[in-house]
Amino acid sequence: MEKNTSGNTGLFIPGPTNIPDKIRQALNVSMQDMRAPDFGELTLPIFADVKKIMGLENGEVFIFPGSGTAGWESAISNLLSFGDEVLMSSFGQFSLLWVDMAQRYGLNVHHCEEEWGLGVPLDRYREILEADKAHKIKAVFVCHNETATGVVSNIEAVRDILNDLDHPALLCVDGVSSIGSLEFHMESWGVDVVVSGSQKGFMLPTGLAIVGVSEKALNSRATANLPRTFLSYDDMLKTNVTGHFPYTPATTLFHGLRASLDMIFDEGLYNVIARHTRLANGVRAGVHAWGLSLCAKTPNLYSNTVSAIVIPEDFDSAEVIKTAYYRYNMSLGAGLNKVAGRVFRIGHLGNLNEIMVLQALAGAEMAMHDCGIQIELGAGVAAAQETFLQANDIKVTKAA
Amino acid sequence: MEKNTSGNTGLFIPGPTNIPDKIRQALNVSMQDMRAPDFGELTLPIFADVKKIMGLENGEVFIFPGSGTAGWESAISNLLSFGDEVLMSSFGQFSLLWVDMAQRYGLNVHHCEEEWGLGVPLDRYREILEADKAHKIKAVFVCHNETATGVVSNIEAVRDILNDLDHPALLCVDGVSSIGSLEFHMESWGVDVVVSGSQKGFMLPTGLAIVGVSEKALNSRATANLPRTFLSYDDMLKTNVTGHFPYTPATTLFHGLRASLDMIFDEGLYNVIARHTRLANGVRAGVHAWGLSLCAKTPNLYSNTVSAIVIPEDFDSAEVIKTAYYRYNMSLGAGLNKVAGRVFRIGHLGNLNEIMVLQALAGAEMAMHDCGIQIELGAGVAAAQETFLQANDIKVTKAA
Amino acid sequence: MEKNTSGNTGLFIPGPTNIPDKIRQALNVSMQDMRAPDFGELTLPIFADVKKIMGLENGEVFIFPGSGTAGWESAISNLLSFGDEVLMSSFGQFSLLWVDMAQRYGLNVHHCEEEWGLGVPLDRYREILEADKAHKIKAVFVCHNETATGVVSNIEAVRDILNDLDHPALLCVDGVSSIGSLEFHMESWGVDVVVSGSQKGFMLPTGLAIVGVSEKALNSRATANLPRTFLSYDDMLKTNVTGHFPYTPATTLFHGLRASLDMIFDEGLYNVIARHTRLANGVRAGVHAWGLSLCAKTPNLYSNTVSAIVIPEDFDSAEVIKTAYYRYNMSLGAGLNKVAGRVFRIGHLGNLNEIMVLQALAGAEMAMHDCGIQIELGAGVAAAQETFLQANDIKVTKAA
Amino acid sequence: MEKNTSGNTGLFIPGPTNIPDKIRQALNVSMQDMRAPDFGELTLPIFADVKKIMGLENGEVFIFPGSGTAGWESAISNLLSFGDEVLMSSFGQFSLLWVDMAQRYGLNVHHCEEEWGLGVPLDRYREILEADKAHKIKAVFVCHNETATGVVSNIEAVRDILNDLDHPALLCVDGVSSIGSLEFHMESWGVDVVVSGSQKGFMLPTGLAIVGVSEKALNSRATANLPRTFLSYDDMLKTNVTGHFPYTPATTLFHGLRASLDMIFDEGLYNVIARHTRLANGVRAGVHAWGLSLCAKTPNLYSNTVSAIVIPEDFDSAEVIKTAYYRYNMSLGAGLNKVAGRVFRIGHLGNLNEIMVLQALAGAEMAMHDCGIQIELGAGVAAAQETFLQANDIKVTKAA
Repeated sequence: MEKNTSGNTGLFIPGPTNIPDKIRQALNVSMQDMRAPDFGELTLPIFADVKKIMGLENGEVFIFPGSGTAGWESAISNLLSFGDEVLMSSFGQFSLLWVDMAQRYGLNVHHCEEEWGLGVPLDRYREILEADKAHKIKAVFVCHNETATGVVSNIEAVRDILNDLDHPALLCVDGVSSIGSLEFHMESWGVDVVVSGSQKGFMLPTGLAIVGVSEKALNSRATANLPRTFLSYDDMLKTNVTGHFPYTPATTLFHGLRASLDMIFDEGLYNVIARHTRLANGVRAGVHAWGLSLCAKTPNLYSNTVSAIVIPEDFDSAEVIKTAYYRYNMSLGAGLNKVAGRVFRIGHLGNLNEIMVLQALAGAEMAMHDCGIQIELGAGVAAAQETFLQANDIKVTKAA
Repeated sequence: MEKNTSGNTGLFIPGPTNIPDKIRQALNVSMQDMRAPDFGELTLPIFADVKKIMGLENGEVFIFPGSGTAGWESAISNLLSFGDEVLMSSFGQFSLLWVDMAQRYGLNVHHCEEEWGLGVPLDRYREILEADKAHKIKAVFVCHNETATGVVSNIEAVRDILNDLDHPALLCVDGVSSIGSLEFHMESWGVDVVVSGSQKGFMLPTGLAIVGVSEKALNSRATANLPRTFLSYDDMLKTNVTGHFPYTPATTLFHGLRASLDMIFDEGLYNVIARHTRLANGVRAGVHAWGLSLCAKTPNLYSNTVSAIVIPEDFDSAEVIKTAYYRYNMSLGAGLNKVAGRVFRIGHLGNLNEIMVLQALAGAEMAMHDCGIQIELGAGVAAAQETFLQANDIKVTKAA
Repeated sequence: MEKNTSGNTGLFIPGPTNIPDKIRQALNVSMQDMRAPDFGELTLPIFADVKKIMGLENGEVFIFPGSGTAGWESAISNLLSFGDEVLMSSFGQFSLLWVDMAQRYGLNVHHCEEEWGLGVPLDRYREILEADKAHKIKAVFVCHNETATGVVSNIEAVRDILNDLDHPALLCVDGVSSIGSLEFHMESWGVDVVVSGSQKGFMLPTGLAIVGVSEKALNSRATANLPRTFLSYDDMLKTNVTGHFPYTPATTLFHGLRASLDMIFDEGLYNVIARHTRLANGVRAGVHAWGLSLCAKTPNLYSNTVSAIVIPEDFDSAEVIKTAYYRYNMSLGAGLNKVAGRVFRIGHLGNLNEIMVLQALAGAEMAMHDCGIQIELGAGVAAAQETFLQANDIKVTKAA
Repeated sequence: MEKNTSGNTGLFIPGPTNIPDKIRQALNVSMQDMRAPDFGELTLPIFADVKKIMGLENGEVFIFPGSGTAGWESAISNLLSFGDEVLMSSFGQFSLLWVDMAQRYGLNVHHCEEEWGLGVPLDRYREILEADKAHKIKAVFVCHNETATGVVSNIEAVRDILNDLDHPALLCVDGVSSIGSLEFHMESWGVDVVVSGSQKGFMLPTGLAIVGVSEKALNSRATANLPRTFLSYDDMLKTNVTGHFPYTPATTLFHGLRASLDMIFDEGLYNVIARHTRLANGVRAGVHAWGLSLCAKTPNLYSNTVSAIVIPEDFDSAEVIKTAYYRYNMSLGAGLNKVAGRVFRIGHLGNLNEIMVLQALAGAEMAMHDCGIQIELGAGVAAAQETFLQANDIKVTKAA
C-alpha cells in the first residue's frame, strides 16, 4: 500500500505524544557546557518542579538519559539485592516486562498473573503480604497505568494493604503513562519509587527516564547489592546537589522539560488531569457508540490516558492500524503480545484537545470501515461530541 | 471567554495554511550572505520550478518580500500608466480590494460589480471588450479564486473572449489562493501576470509575493509610467539573472520554498490538485449534510481550496468563529465585508489530508451547535467520510 | 574553488545578522489566524516596544512585510506628492539608492553628491534650506548610517539646522543599519520618519520593514498624492488600532520581533549601544594594526555597526571576500558601486560579542594574506584584544 | 561575575559539540510511531552507515537512548560474568571511570594505573597477557582517546599484542571521543566492542549510546551472566532486525543521526579525519606559541579531537575557564580529578573549521590574560594561522 503522506500525521499512540509548539521551540537550542558553573540554574528548579508533578515532598527526583525501561531498571538495581523477594503482578505487556526484568536481575518474584484487562490484584496482594510474616518481601511493584490494555490500578489501595499489615516493603510504581496526566500523590500514597518517561504526559521526545524516589527508598541503597553505574542513584545524588550530573546529561531535553513543566503549571495540574478525564470520556463514548468494548474489564479500570479497543472477532486489529497508517496518515497503537490482533489503542494523553480526539475517532472509523468492520460512520464522533458538550455545560455552570 | 489552549490548534483558515514538517525544518536556518557568489544555486532553480507550478514557459517569475497585496500592486505599477483603462470585476472582498487598488493608482477602471457568490462575469466582459474597438483597455483583471466567497472563476474562458475578439489587453490574474492547489496553465491560458503568495498552496509563512509574468507583459514595462522601485520588475530582472536581488531577499523563506517545491513535485502536481478536489468534495458533502449551503451560487463555481458556508439567518457567523477559537482551539475563516456575519469559511488547501478535513467538520459542528444552530452532530463528518471512502474505492480500482 | 563547508559559517556582513538562539526558537512556530480576536495581544505591545527602541513617543510604528527598501518607499509615497521638492544627499550606495527612488517617484530632488566616505553635508544642507525661503522643500532626507561605507551622520545637527531656520520640512531618516544598535532619539531629534528593517539590529531574518512616523508626518498624508496601497499608512492605521493588518502580516517574524525586543530590553538598550561601541573599537583597532584605513574619512564618521576597510591598491577586495567565503567559510561584506574592489566590509552589529569580532579579524587576516596583501598575521586580533581588555578594566572600575 | 550573554556562545568543550544547521533542522521534527511498519526505513540504513564509520564489517551496531556511560556498561554487562578477569588501564578521568564501573560490576580488574598524560601501557599489557597462559583474562579494555587529557592510544598495537600471544580476550575500546573524528578500523584492528556517543564526532545532542560489537563478542553473550535488560544486546538483536526496538527509541536523534551520517559521507570520512588533524595542529601551534605545554606527554600521544593545556603553576585553570565563560561567553573544558586546576581543555572535534579554532584561541588568550597568565595576545592565533596557511598550500598542491 502506498503511504498517504499529505497533511499532518495524526499521532494517536500512547506515547511518544504530540509535542506542543512551545516545547518544540525550547528543544531547538544550541549545545552548551553541562559543567558550566550556572548549569544548576536550569536543572535545579526542574528537579523541584517534577517533584510537584509527582506529589513528592521528601525524596529525590533523578533524570537519566534513557527511557522508561531505564527507570524500571534503576528501581531494581539501586534498591534491591540478588535473591530478594518481591511481589509483582502482570496484566498487560508492560507490567509483564517489568516482571521479566526483575527475574533477569535475579530477584525472587512472587508473580501474580492476571487476565489482561484487569488491574493489580488487591486481594492476592493482601493474601501474599499477610502470609509474609517475616517481611521477606522487600518490594511490591505495581503498574499504575497499563499502557497495553488501558487499565488503571489503584495505588492507594495497595498502600492501604501495606499499612494495614504494617508491612515495610517498598512500594514501586510504574507511572510511565500516568505521571502528569492522572492523579498521583507520591507522598500521601506512600509510593517509594515512581518511574516515568519524557514521552508521555511530559509531551517531550523519548530520551529521559524520570524517577521519583522516597527517602525511605534512598535509605535502602546502602544494602542493595545489585550492580549499577549508568543508573546509579548514588552518583546522581553526589552531583545533582549543584545541578550537575555524573556524565553528560541530555541537556536539550532539559530545556524541553522546563517548557513542559511551565505549560502544565500554566494550565494547572488539576486542570490537566480534568482535561484527560474529559477527553477520555469522549473516546469511550465513541467506542461504545461503535458497539465495541474496551479491553479494560470494568469502568473503574478505564484509563484516562489510553484506550485499548477490542475489535470484533474475525478481524485483525493490525489491519486496522495498517490501514489507518497507510491510507489516512494516522498512527494508532498496536495490540501487543496476548492482545495482538485483538485490540487497537488510542492514546489520549499529553498535548491533546477535543478536536484531536474527534479526529482520532473519525480516522479510526474510516480505517475500521475499510477493513470491513460494521460500524456506522460518524457515530463515534457524534457520541464524543455529545460528551464534550455536556462537559462544556458543566464548565459554564461552574464559571457562573 | 477563556481560551482553550491545550492540544494543537486546528488551523482551517484559507491561509496562512498549515506548515508541513519538512518546510518547518527548512525554515530553521542560519542567516547567510545574499551577495555570496553561489547564492544563485539556491534561487535560480526555484525560479525555474515556480514556473512549472504556474505552467509558465516563457516569461519570468519574480519573488518579492511581501504579501499577495504586493504582488497585485506590482502587476499594476510595472505594466500600466496613469489613466489607463482596465477591466475588472468584484464579487468578493479580495477582487474588490484589487479594484480599489487600481483606482487608487489612478487607473480608469471598468468595474463590473457582481453579486458575491458569483464569479467573473464572462458575458459582461465580452460585451465591454467587444465595445472597446479602439483597444483602450490595456488590461483585464480576474480573480481566479475569490478567497472570501469560495468561488473559482474560469480563466480560460476569459482568454477565449480576448482571443475571439483579437483584443490585445493583458490578462492579469489573482492566483493567490489557487496556484499550487488548482489547475493553472499560464502559458496555454495566455495569462500575462499571475499573482501568488507564499502562505497558501506553497504552505509557507506569509512573506513572499510570487509573481509570474509573461514575455508580452514584460514588454509592456517600457511604456508603463506608474512609479515603482520596491516592486520593480526591471530591478529584479537585472539582478535575478545571477540569482541575486536588488535588495536583501527573505532568504529564510527561499529555503522554505525549496522544500515546498520539492514536496509538490514529490507528490506530483496533478496529485496535489486531485487531492484538493477530493478533500473539497468532503467538505462540501459535510456542509450539505448540515442542511447548509455555500456562498458560491452553483457547483461550477465551488472552489477546491476554500468553502464559505452560509449559516441560517438569525445567527451570527462571527459567534461561530469565536466559539470555535476560544472553546475548541480552532481557527475558521471570517466572513468579510458584505458577507460578514453570514458566512464562516473552511480553508482546505495546502498541507491537508482527510483526517484534517474531518477534524475541521467535527469542530465546526460543535461550534455551531454551541451557538444554537440546529445541526445533527456527526452528520457532516459522516457525509465527508462517505465521499472519502468512495474516493478510496476509485483509487483501489485504479491500482488494480 | 571548492567551498569549505565544515563548521559554522562566520557571518560578518552588515545584515542579515546572526540570529540569536532565542529568536530562532521564537521563529520556529506554527501558523496562526491573523484575524483572531486576540491577535493584538501579540502585535500591540510590539508596536509600543519598537517605539521605545526608536525613541518615538508620539506617532506610530508601521511594520510591513518587506525590506528596508519598502520602508524607504513608504516614506516617499505616503507623505509626498508628484513634483514635491526634497533635499537629499548621497555618499554611498544606500543613500544613493534612496535618491534614485525619489527621482523615480517623480520628486524634484536637490541632490547633494558627496565623496563616498563622507556623511551628510551639513553646510550644503543649511545653505539650500536657507535659500528655500518659500519652504518649497517638503522633506529632508538623511541616511543615518551608510552601510556601504561605514559612515554615521549627525541627525541631530540636521534637526538643528531646520530649527534654526524654522523650516517646516519633514526630516526623513534611513535608520536601517542604526536602529537598535546606535543611539537614536526620534522624538528629541525631531525625526519625522525613520526606516528600519528586521535583519540588522533587530537580529531577525529579512522580511519586515519597520517604520516610525511622527504625528507631524502622519498629518501630511492628507495632501500626499503619490499612489500607495501595499505600503499605505492609512490602511495600516485603520486596522493596527486593534493589532490587525490590512492584509496577512508576516506573523512568524512578529514572534521573532517579540523575542528580539525582549532581548534588547533584557540587556538594556544603552548596554546594547555601548556594546556596539566597544566591539566597533575593537574592529577599528584591528584595521589600524593591519596598516589599513577605513573608508570613513574621519573618526567622527566611523560607524559602530559596520566598517568598510580600504585595501591597498593593486589588490581587489572582491578576491579577499571570495577567498574568505570559499576557503574559510566566512562572509564579509562586498564593496558596492564606487567602492567595489576597493573595500571589504565587516558588519559588527546585532547579536555579536568580543570573540565573534576576534574571529572576524582572524579570518579576514587569513583571506587577505592568501590574496597577497602584506599584513602581519594575528596583529589585528591582538590589537582588538587590547581594546577589549581596556574595556573590561573600565567595566571593573565602574562596578567597584 | 555577571555573565556576558551577548552574541553566540563559543562552545569549545570536547562534547557536546557544535550542532551543524543541517542536523539542527533534522532534529526539529514531529513525533512518530516507532512501531510503524516502515520505521525500519529510517533506522536500518543508519545501522549500516554507522558500521561504515566504525570500520565494522561483520557484527552489529546497537543504539541505546543513553550516553557513553551506558555504552561502557553495555560492553561489560552483555559480555562478561561476575568475577571475570579483565585487563584495564587508567590514565585520565574517563579511563578511570570505566575501571571503576568494571569493579562495581564485580569484575576482577588487572588495573594498570598510568601517569595522566600517558596512554595505554603497551609493555605492561603485553607482560600481563603473556603471563596469563590460562587465558583467564576475558577482555582487554582500552580508552582510544582519553578526553580528560587529550591522549590518543594505539589500538592497533594492542591488537598486535593479542595476536602475537594468540590471546583470545575480547578487545573493548572506548571510542566516545574518537569515532567519526579519528581513524578507526574496527574490523582490521580486531576490535570487539567500541563505545561511542552522539554528542562528539556525530555532532548531535547527548542522548544516544552508539556501540559496535563484533561477531566474536556477540557470541560471548551466551555465557555472560551479568544482569542487563535496558542495555541488553539480545533484546536489541531480536527487534533491530526489522529496524524496531525493544522499547521506545529516541527517534528524534535518529533523524539527527541520519543527517550527521549524510554530512560525514558528503565531506568524506577521510576528509573529516584530515580536517581534524589540520585543526588540531593549529590548536597545538597556538599552545606552543603561548609557551605552554600539553598534558599529553609526547607528540605521538597528541589527540586530534581535544587538547588539555597545562597552565603555569601558581594559576588555577578553573579561573581561566570561569573567566572565559562569564566574561567572554565561551566554554572551555574543565580539568578533571587529578588535573583539576592544572589544565583547561579545548575540544576540537565535530562541526569545526579554521575560524572556529582561531576564535577559541583568541578567547582563551583573553581569559588567560585576565587571570594574570603572561602570554602574548594574538600569538597563539598567529601561530595557528601559520599552520592553516601551510595546510592550504598543501591542499593547493594536491589539487594541481
